[in-house]
Amino acid sequence: MIHFDSDYMAGAHPEILEALVRTNLEHTAGYGNDHYTAEAKALIRKAVGVEDAQVFFLVGGTQTNATVIDGILARHEGVIAADSGHIAVHESGAIEASGHKVLTLPHHSGKLCAEEVKRYISEFYRDETYPHMVAPGMVYISQPTEYGTIYSLAELEALGAVCRKHSIPLYIDGARLGYGLKAEGADFSLRDIARIADVFYIGGTKVGALFGEAVVVTNPKLLRNLFPLVKQHGALLAKGRLLGLQFGALFRDGLYEHIGEQAVKHAITIRETFRKAGYEIVIESPTNQQFVRLPNEVIDRLHQDMSFDYWGSRGESESIVRFVTSWATTDEDIERLKELVG
Amino acid sequence: MIHFDSDYMAGAHPEILEALVRTNLEHTAGYGNDHYTAEAKALIRKAVGVEDAQVFFLVGGTQTNATVIDGILARHEGVIAADSGHIAVHESGAIEASGHKVLTLPHHSGKLCAEEVKRYISEFYRDETYPHMVAPGMVYISQPTEYGTIYSLAELEALGAVCRKHSIPLYIDGARLGYGLKAEGADFSLRDIARIADVFYIGGTKVGALFGEAVVVTNPKLLRNLFPLVKQHGALLAKGRLLGLQFGALFRDGLYEHIGEQAVKHAITIRETFRKAGYEIVIESPTNQQFVRLPNEVIDRLHQDMSFDYWGSRGESESIVRFVTSWATTDEDIERLKELVG
Amino acid sequence: MIHFDSDYMAGAHPEILEALVRTNLEHTAGYGNDHYTAEAKALIRKAVGVEDAQVFFLVGGTQTNATVIDGILARHEGVIAADSGHIAVHESGAIEASGHKVLTLPHHSGKLCAEEVKRYISEFYRDETYPHMVAPGMVYISQPTEYGTIYSLAELEALGAVCRKHSIPLYIDGARLGYGLKAEGADFSLRDIARIADVFYIGGTKVGALFGEAVVVTNPKLLRNLFPLVKQHGALLAKGRLLGLQFGALFRDGLYEHIGEQAVKHAITIRETFRKAGYEIVIESPTNQQFVRLPNEVIDRLHQDMSFDYWGSRGESESIVRFVTSWATTDEDIERLKELVG
Amino acid sequence: MIHFDSDYMAGAHPEILEALVRTNLEHTAGYGNDHYTAEAKALIRKAVGVEDAQVFFLVGGTQTNATVIDGILARHEGVIAADSGHIAVHESGAIEASGHKVLTLPHHSGKLCAEEVKRYISEFYRDETYPHMVAPGMVYISQPTEYGTIYSLAELEALGAVCRKHSIPLYIDGARLGYGLKAEGADFSLRDIARIADVFYIGGTKVGALFGEAVVVTNPKLLRNLFPLVKQHGALLAKGRLLGLQFGALFRDGLYEHIGEQAVKHAITIRETFRKAGYEIVIESPTNQQFVRLPNEVIDRLHQDMSFDYWGSRGESESIVRFVTSWATTDEDIERLKELVG
Repeated sequence: MIHFDSDYMAGAHPEILEALVRTNLEHTAGYGNDHYTAEAKALIRKAVGVEDAQVFFLVGGTQTNATVIDGILARHEGVIAADSGHIAVHESGAIEASGHKVLTLPHHSGKLCAEEVKRYISEFYRDETYPHMVAPGMVYISQPTEYGTIYSLAELEALGAVCRKHSIPLYIDGARLGYGLKAEGADFSLRDIARIADVFYIGGTKVGALFGEAVVVTNPKLLRNLFPLVKQHGALLAKGRLLGLQFGALFRDGLYEHIGEQAVKHAITIRETFRKAGYEIVIESPTNQQFVRLPNEVIDRLHQDMSFDYWGSRGESESIVRFVTSWATTDEDIERLKELVG
Repeated sequence: MIHFDSDYMAGAHPEILEALVRTNLEHTAGYGNDHYTAEAKALIRKAVGVEDAQVFFLVGGTQTNATVIDGILARHEGVIAADSGHIAVHESGAIEASGHKVLTLPHHSGKLCAEEVKRYISEFYRDETYPHMVAPGMVYISQPTEYGTIYSLAELEALGAVCRKHSIPLYIDGARLGYGLKAEGADFSLRDIARIADVFYIGGTKVGALFGEAVVVTNPKLLRNLFPLVKQHGALLAKGRLLGLQFGALFRDGLYEHIGEQAVKHAITIRETFRKAGYEIVIESPTNQQFVRLPNEVIDRLHQDMSFDYWGSRGESESIVRFVTSWATTDEDIERLKELVG
Repeated sequence: MIHFDSDYMAGAHPEILEALVRTNLEHTAGYGNDHYTAEAKALIRKAVGVEDAQVFFLVGGTQTNATVIDGILARHEGVIAADSGHIAVHESGAIEASGHKVLTLPHHSGKLCAEEVKRYISEFYRDETYPHMVAPGMVYISQPTEYGTIYSLAELEALGAVCRKHSIPLYIDGARLGYGLKAEGADFSLRDIARIADVFYIGGTKVGALFGEAVVVTNPKLLRNLFPLVKQHGALLAKGRLLGLQFGALFRDGLYEHIGEQAVKHAITIRETFRKAGYEIVIESPTNQQFVRLPNEVIDRLHQDMSFDYWGSRGESESIVRFVTSWATTDEDIERLKELVG
Repeated sequence: MIHFDSDYMAGAHPEILEALVRTNLEHTAGYGNDHYTAEAKALIRKAVGVEDAQVFFLVGGTQTNATVIDGILARHEGVIAADSGHIAVHESGAIEASGHKVLTLPHHSGKLCAEEVKRYISEFYRDETYPHMVAPGMVYISQPTEYGTIYSLAELEALGAVCRKHSIPLYIDGARLGYGLKAEGADFSLRDIARIADVFYIGGTKVGALFGEAVVVTNPKLLRNLFPLVKQHGALLAKGRLLGLQFGALFRDGLYEHIGEQAVKHAITIRETFRKAGYEIVIESPTNQQFVRLPNEVIDRLHQDMSFDYWGSRGESESIVRFVTSWATTDEDIERLKELVG
């Protein structure tokens, strides 16, 4: 059975696991106060091109979003997000549980439109009753989005400009950032992300690690007390070096880039295989998630050899399904798919 | 250098790591919906002797405490704990961050006294102003305590009786439960814990796992919606099988017991070595944490070969220090300590 | 100058103020433990026709909504509301501040559609990822709505049926309930409200009192610990009798009904005056709020004699404005308006 | 029957009520945007001697404490208070409900000791594990305290100095400030309070108003967004002028001072009457609360003519009781007490 369900179904990339095995018997200080974590932070600072960036490792995406957003917003503020955003839909109310409203705007293939954000903020302050409403305190976007799409550099710049104009920080959820950086047609770099965002995270869980997300704070005025905040959110890993070791492995010799590149290449092949076979590509995704419309009988046939996610029905005889690749996707997996579809 | 600082300084017990390595390339469903997790839950249900217990795996202790306590308490209720309890001191306000007061009583070598809990609750409801005060909604204890001490079976039964009488649940934080079960003179079993507590957790992070805590809910009326609550607290691991695999390894063939037994044996040897050498044992701990009063010059000398924690000064020339053992402590470590102290 | 801005611009109805003056020098127990409050509760229980209803008086609407919703929802649940609902728009995030998401559905002239609520809940549980999403835990509606419209008895029954089917409570925000009960064409009674809702509040602030809202809990399983919850929300009035005295005055001899009747009568006259003069009535409101589209020059002219609220522009030369009546609106006010408009 | 139970049992001082009656039919803007509120703010700014102080009116004490403390603290911080402090005991967990721990120190007749606060903060930062603990983010005191005692000017200065040294704000809960300012032997003025505290409130509820507390922020860096925060806490009064009118009446011609003076004079007479009659004065209170130890038979006899609070038993035949005076206490009340006790 081949698996295209998601990018967190296998363990870790072998190089990452090897780092954990190799160092297993060593004793180090807990809570990230170890040299592996220090090295990983330095590697990430270098990769993002911001020497004094604050870097902090957490375990998972929801806890990262909740901790960062809670740490940034004042009590009367909320966070602007696309209505398809992970924090708006799939975090069981974690943002609200820490006291903050998610202010949603309609998404465009998963993306926020800078112009609409600008209009929202302007109209907010033109409404005389605004002191009774939740003030927009930051902007959240996912890069890539939950739909596999990416913001272009120009779109990122436009969002950054709106945020700077209104003095509210821009936060980029990079749960799948590795696949965005190597996306087909991507015109932005990790340095661009670091330059435009005030804070963002580089996802590990979905990009080869057992778990782990690296928060990068480039705006030095934000999040001065991240350590106790992380602890308060239950997000501090006792054996913190496990995070440092994994991100060290990802960023020492280009593994993070390599994983992104391979998975995207495989995903594009899947997309084009389906397109050539005459099926509708529902979202033009340049990353590791692909959305295809297939007859239910084709789905049933493919399911004999591979697993993938159901995304919604289209009429009685067709459905939309999602194929996701990762570091664990092999050339053989792709060849088999081509045989079955082509 | 030998390490006695804490029980979370090394990686995982080799058998646990081996389980992760062996299964690394497999694909399974996320969020704990995999067969390894199912097996681990079954093993734990069997070990605790409660067939219909609800078992749930989380990553770390603070997040487990915050999630469980938040899930149990009504909004106007607080949790009774010893003033030395982990939730009262070392969780950066995680309990308060979810809206609840920790109602502290003075500890006795880290322990709550059932009689004092009873009196507290009685006096609370005798105070006519009690509707203006935070109602005691549950009792929290650590077994073993933060001071390495353990509750006897009689003490546990007494606390359980007070809780049942007042219809409030008893929650046992078992971050180091493995060392408590094998403590010198321990007269309680895992089944006793499951019988007396309404909910408790079996600690993995400090007892051989890379990370992980197993929450066991034996009172079927409590915590019916643990999954979304765990997600909301940012405590849901995407690759949930990592927890199942680790607890499977711990509970399949007695590894959890073995780790506890070995570490306690080593700790008792350390204690008796210091005692025979004429040093004061500050707390009579029967578990893997030992507290000794040493002249500062002895501390300096020992520090050349081993690391351990500073716990507080006693006058100008002496200090209290803590020695902690774990699965990673070797016979050679102990022999070396005996040579240096004896 | 005549005032049509809102229904909370004057003090209290003279009969209410008189009750406060008459009893001013009396000493009574605090926090609502006085005989005036007891009498008011009895009067309200009688008026709503539920002998064992729990009645509790709070000071203002936002605090009432936050306290009731927080007291009902489990931590992982949210509240369904129209996107125009007061809790969704104009409470500065008070619901989120207590940890809960407001799950919005599109409004229809301020109203939720029972069929859409039903579909939302059904689709929620059909989505396999629902445990990662905020579960619908109650339904909130305003009667009358923020747009001055009212739910018919059939619409209320339909919403009640959806809620009962899914075992989630229906909460009715009656900030302006007095004007709804006497609305043009209203086919529901206070007893209907009490029968259909699980909990609701009878607004005092906007219906003649200095301040005060009466929460009525008719579902005996809900909100068992309202007193400490009210205190925790900072919503407990020390001199609680002030609330009892006001609601006593409102419900002893039909004052609440009288105020509603008069204000609605005046509002309908305003509406018809504008309609006859050829202006567009923007929302067909049968209550004390009326929304009219006027040329800006007419607005400017009227502003010389009266104040009213700006609601939004329509093109360059017209605007929508709101006229609100209350107990403080006089026949003379209405005559003057007729002169100026007609 | 004479009433010495508390200072919130009667309505409002007649001059205050008269202001409400006189203005009842006027229409003004809501939420405190009216000229009466503006005037009251100006009067208070003048009285406290800080021209640019921010003044805000809330309804009650618990909501004021919760709003102010929540608005000041960062998420990882807690508030230092005496273990007898109102926020620590009698606010149903309102501070914790907004996410913050109350860090208690032992009280001395209701007071915090500056030296102990200093030591607490110093020791906190000397503990290497402090990032895992709740950081002291502000200091809360009540003046007068819950025990009727007062801080001397020197004690206030000492606390202010500790706070400034550690850059954390000092917040003074002045629920009964009027009685403190006129306390026997008081050596501090309202201007001293304003100079030393960063934020404080002047209590109205217990000092002659129907309700209302005036928050004064003298540190311009604190609480920049008080309006939405107040709204979010459900503490914004729709008919806000009611607060402005009451504080206007209290501060226009010295009524606040007069009420404090009279009540304290009466309380001292009560205290000395009991002392002369040979009874033990349990707390040397110079304010409007007096604590006396009486034989139970004396208590029973007095209860035939007057009400007062039971405070605790002393052996089998004696109890401690509390007598409280207010603006509503008359010379006749005091004469009657003298007759019965003397």
